[in-house]
Amino acid sequence: MKIIQDVQTLRERLAGAGSIGFVPTMGFLHEGHASLLKQARQENDVVVLSIFVNPTQFGPNEDLDRYPRDAERDQKIAEAEGVDYLFYPTNETMYPLDMARVTVRSGDDVLCGASRPGHFDGVLTVVSKLLNVVRPTRAYFGLKDAQQLALIEAYVADYFVPVEIVRCPIIREADGLAKSSRNVYLSETERAQAPGIQQALQQAKQALDQGVPVETVLDRTREALQFEGTTIDYVEAVDYPSLRPVTEQTTTILLAVAVQFASARLIDNLLYTRGA
Amino acid sequence: MKIIQDVQTLRERLAGAGSIGFVPTMGFLHEGHASLLKQARQENDVVVLSIFVNPTQFGPNEDLDRYPRDAERDQKIAEAEGVDYLFYPTNETMYPLDMARVTVRSGDDVLCGASRPGHFDGVLTVVSKLLNVVRPTRAYFGLKDAQQLALIEAYVADYFVPVEIVRCPIIREADGLAKSSRNVYLSETERAQAPGIQQALQQAKQALDQGVPVETVLDRTREALQFEGTTIDYVEAVDYPSLRPVTEQTTTILLAVAVQFASARLIDNLLYTRGA
Repeated sequence: MKIIQDVQTLRERLAGAGSIGFVPTMGFLHEGHASLLKQARQENDVVVLSIFVNPTQFGPNEDLDRYPRDAERDQKIAEAEGVDYLFYPTNETMYPLDMARVTVRSGDDVLCGASRPGHFDGVLTVVSKLLNVVRPTRAYFGLKDAQQLALIEAYVADYFVPVEIVRCPIIREADGLAKSSRNVYLSETERAQAPGIQQALQQAKQALDQGVPVETVLDRTREALQFEGTTIDYVEAVDYPSLRPVTEQTTTILLAVAVQFASARLIDNLLYTRGA
Repeated sequence: MKIIQDVQTLRERLAGAGSIGFVPTMGFLHEGHASLLKQARQENDVVVLSIFVNPTQFGPNEDLDRYPRDAERDQKIAEAEGVDYLFYPTNETMYPLDMARVTVRSGDDVLCGASRPGHFDGVLTVVSKLLNVVRPTRAYFGLKDAQQLALIEAYVADYFVPVEIVRCPIIREADGLAKSSRNVYLSETERAQAPGIQQALQQAKQALDQGVPVETVLDRTREALQFEGTTIDYVEAVDYPSLRPVTEQTTTILLAVAVQFASARLIDNLLYTRGA
């Protein structure tokens, strides 16, 4: 595995490389990222992993400075998963001029976007840059960040970016908690509460299977997420991947939740296809 | 020459095409565009011309609806200049979702940008889309729209777009008036006044050659541009291509002017390299 910091060198290495699978991350890799890398390894000649804690997707009161980092461990995981090139740019490399940003016009006023203004502008800005740098055949994103994935798919379609976006399933701990770099922040008590999120989503799935109306399911899910010392950021259902309100025409419902613990904000979701 | 309206067909035609020269325009072609096409023809295996009157770069009070169009004449010119593919998309083709825009953060608060808020956001949005559609080896832009060219060059650098941007000189009428699709709007009297713009710029060049300070040159140029019935939109000097204020370190000065005639707003400029 080669670790590369600059764009020119990466491009030289990738010239004529055959099919390229790309996994963009902010590092502090866990089994969720590893599953993306495994799939990229199976489907492409070359695998590129990027690690870049993108400052423009953090709000002024968010956790950029304390975002967890472990470069050595990340490299070991990348090596073990058969990554060919680890792209490790600096802020100056990714934002040489920072003269323009991608600004989202629709789909960022719900779910995480509602409480994180500008977050998805930052995500799409950096993803569009990274896709131009790597020019992959396929790029892999997890359904954990379902809104991010939907917006990236929409951006790629809207801007004719020549890449195939691959949707990858949420990877969970044995007790159901969705893997996240932010899980390390949780106290022991919080870590014991956190699997309740997935349990609430499983109950929601059963209720939807039984034909319970979406609004009722959302109310029940809100009740189920009343953990001591936490607050609910949102419990919402939207059409997927349009992120518009659920209507009778909706085939796939994204039921997404965010719970604010004292030490971390956790998200999880259920992608529910009606009649499937 | 093939006329193509959809992205998929264009991409199929361009697959494995060798070097691609691309000239994006809003149509109503004149000798300025023809000069871009000639250069593209000389330097590339395949030449693509796009004609698309981009709605997002027009302000609410601007001339989108009455922007001049002449598809038949444009096709003849394109054919004569050896264009291989004329890409003629609809609004729906270029904005399938319109879910995100490119937003300029610096360099759009001077010159044309100051009086046309959002104009360069629209320009960069459509140019970034067109570059993704065509994926050219080289794209050709005229120095007539010097601010546009500088911002496109900055965008391409900032976003790692794999294309060479080629700067092409301003093409003028015999009497010095810069060629523009908007010149057709001019009344006879205005058409007689309009070459005064280039004369004022030539006087500015001589003054700069003689070491006259930039501020004095700007004042003199403002005086020289007092045509009856017109108003000066701006007369400004900025560093090129940064578009920042001129300092002692500035090598190349962009002295740019915009004059509002009753029937059209005309722009012109002088790119002045100190000591050259």
